[in-house]
Amino acid sequence: MTQGGPDQPHPPVPAAWLDNPGLIAPPHQVRLSAPLVLDCGRTLPGAIVNFETYGTLSPRRDNAILVCHSLTHRAHAAGRRAPGDARPGWWHGAIGPGKLLDTNRYFVICADALAAGGSTRPASVEEATGRRYAMRFPVITVRDMVNLQHLLIERLGIARLHAVIGGCLGGQQAIEWAICHPEVIQNAVVITTTPATSAHSIAIFAVMRHLIRADPDWRAGDYYGTSFPRAGLNAAVAAAVPLWMSREAMEQRFGRRTASHKEHEEEATYSYTLESEFEVESFIDALVARARHELDPNGLMYLMRAVEYFDLEHEYGDLAQAFKPVTARVLFVSYRRDWRYPAAETDRMHRALAAAGGDSRHRVLDSQLGHGAFLFDVPGLAAEVTSFLDEAS
Amino acid sequence: MTQGGPDQPHPPVPAAWLDNPGLIAPPHQVRLSAPLVLDCGRTLPGAIVNFETYGTLSPRRDNAILVCHSLTHRAHAAGRRAPGDARPGWWHGAIGPGKLLDTNRYFVICADALAAGGSTRPASVEEATGRRYAMRFPVITVRDMVNLQHLLIERLGIARLHAVIGGCLGGQQAIEWAICHPEVIQNAVVITTTPATSAHSIAIFAVMRHLIRADPDWRAGDYYGTSFPRAGLNAAVAAAVPLWMSREAMEQRFGRRTASHKEHEEEATYSYTLESEFEVESFIDALVARARHELDPNGLMYLMRAVEYFDLEHEYGDLAQAFKPVTARVLFVSYRRDWRYPAAETDRMHRALAAAGGDSRHRVLDSQLGHGAFLFDVPGLAAEVTSFLDEAS
Repeated sequence: MTQGGPDQPHPPVPAAWLDNPGLIAPPHQVRLSAPLVLDCGRTLPGAIVNFETYGTLSPRRDNAILVCHSLTHRAHAAGRRAPGDARPGWWHGAIGPGKLLDTNRYFVICADALAAGGSTRPASVEEATGRRYAMRFPVITVRDMVNLQHLLIERLGIARLHAVIGGCLGGQQAIEWAICHPEVIQNAVVITTTPATSAHSIAIFAVMRHLIRADPDWRAGDYYGTSFPRAGLNAAVAAAVPLWMSREAMEQRFGRRTASHKEHEEEATYSYTLESEFEVESFIDALVARARHELDPNGLMYLMRAVEYFDLEHEYGDLAQAFKPVTARVLFVSYRRDWRYPAAETDRMHRALAAAGGDSRHRVLDSQLGHGAFLFDVPGLAAEVTSFLDEAS
Repeated sequence: MTQGGPDQPHPPVPAAWLDNPGLIAPPHQVRLSAPLVLDCGRTLPGAIVNFETYGTLSPRRDNAILVCHSLTHRAHAAGRRAPGDARPGWWHGAIGPGKLLDTNRYFVICADALAAGGSTRPASVEEATGRRYAMRFPVITVRDMVNLQHLLIERLGIARLHAVIGGCLGGQQAIEWAICHPEVIQNAVVITTTPATSAHSIAIFAVMRHLIRADPDWRAGDYYGTSFPRAGLNAAVAAAVPLWMSREAMEQRFGRRTASHKEHEEEATYSYTLESEFEVESFIDALVARARHELDPNGLMYLMRAVEYFDLEHEYGDLAQAFKPVTARVLFVSYRRDWRYPAAETDRMHRALAAAGGDSRHRVLDSQLGHGAFLFDVPGLAAEVTSFLDEAS
């Protein structure tokens, strides 16, 4: 569904949405006629949003849940692109019949964020100039992403979202949704999110930017159609491993095991080589080898910058001020071992929202996986989220 | 002092060592005639050791303290290379008259580790082939480094070291010294060292190796005289920042301050740019810009590998077995906020040594700086070390 022309306030719902039990997800695209005014002051005309949906929109259009994706994920959140597809969407464990987001009950929407995937992004052609934006793309914020999604929801004729949910960058979007569009959001699930992005995350993102830009094939961002900064992206992917995998998780998963450990257990000796010998090395090699080239390096840099700019106190003065408009019920979820987004910082949001009279709760879960737990360790999260959403029904 | 020929058991002490109060440190070099047999099974003939000394060797030669350096440091530990030198040695705060290692009392030696600085290293010419080792250099271990230093100490006619001291890789050397050459070591100060290098450190080193080797100027290691993998080394330096600087230290030092914060305090707004704007970004830029090109990328890779191979339980079966030969008094020092080398893991060594009948103590210090605290936060460390060494005198 690619449509131009003026937005219709309540367009007919495509037939495909009404019967999608198999989670074979066709991407949809809309082109918005309303210009998107950005935090930086610039305006994006005719922005495109690429999205997928799972489950069936109710006749009253009151069962929609918006999933906001994180830095390296995209609209393809669940199901398979085709029946034989080996790799389902990034939150397949959480979206489907009887799952955390039960598609027997809910109509789940996941859209490519602004600057990501198939939505308007640095690789898009700028209408005014006829060339791709590349580094001329405006610097965007999490709030800009939310405002683009808001235009999408309006365009789909959905006045209220039953819930918005996301972790990390997705959680930053979820809380901004509750702040910026309170009339739309009934419930918000904000996972592994702190009031502001840490200097530590900024540092790692800065390193990743440095690595991408150092690749001669980056060509100041104008590589489209001529080259691809593959080495730079590979390097950035490698450098990010200690960002999303905690020390503890690495010890648990790999420890000091070597290839020879596996074969001989007690007999393990070193190979005295600089080639990969420890399992954790092979893990990094594999990550680099299958570096996800569906990631556009320019787009990644813009998304990282949006995360870096996220700082509710900077945006709104203080948390009390930030949460004044919020009417949604809010569930904050953090993980005890998430050293990058500590539960204590999430709790500051919860307490500020509760103090502002908001309907807030904060659950601290435990998982070996720390920050990435919401992606893979779904059962513990599901218990909290489903009871939270059930109470709302 | 560069000498060839057979080792003399008690060579005369150079006059320069006997009066070096100004800490203007001339590097010394010895070439060892005894071949160095390595853990990997290969032998290094005619190894060279480059070292510096501070203070005066006593007539009884009983006041020598060996300082073992860490990954990116070298023999130049204190003082200035010339009177006007703006950048003193890496542990200048700890070595000198009245300091942690008081050069009025002690004769302090710091040698370039095997594979580092001016000691035998990948850039050295292999006698048998007449060409530089490069990646044909043998893979070395911390024990190999210690054994090379042992040959140096013998060569200097010093039968007993009053103490050996080091942090991180230096601490790994200090404890191996106490294990491998108990007859030499009276006291050992082992700082920020755990029984084995973590998977997390291996992962970051693997990333750094990947970045160096991905640079086309690396030329499979044979870049000497033709090129220099500057981009790869810069990238590795950048990627290492989150290794040695903790999340907490970054928040403390930089937080989310931007350049505009500094000028206008409350008025700070974002510039909406991908260029460096946060102070932590400028910090990384500066590190990359002045990347320490006295580091040889090949040498760095060999040193990292030695650190990765460090695992007392792997080497000796278990800690009890490892510590059986130890006769030295041992002081373990760790830092409460050193998330990479946790105090609890250091304590395993202390308890095993004490259980084996060893004279051991473990002090857990507190410092914002975490792992790097021993380098910069000297006073707290000095109190512990000087009282430990005083008790021994």
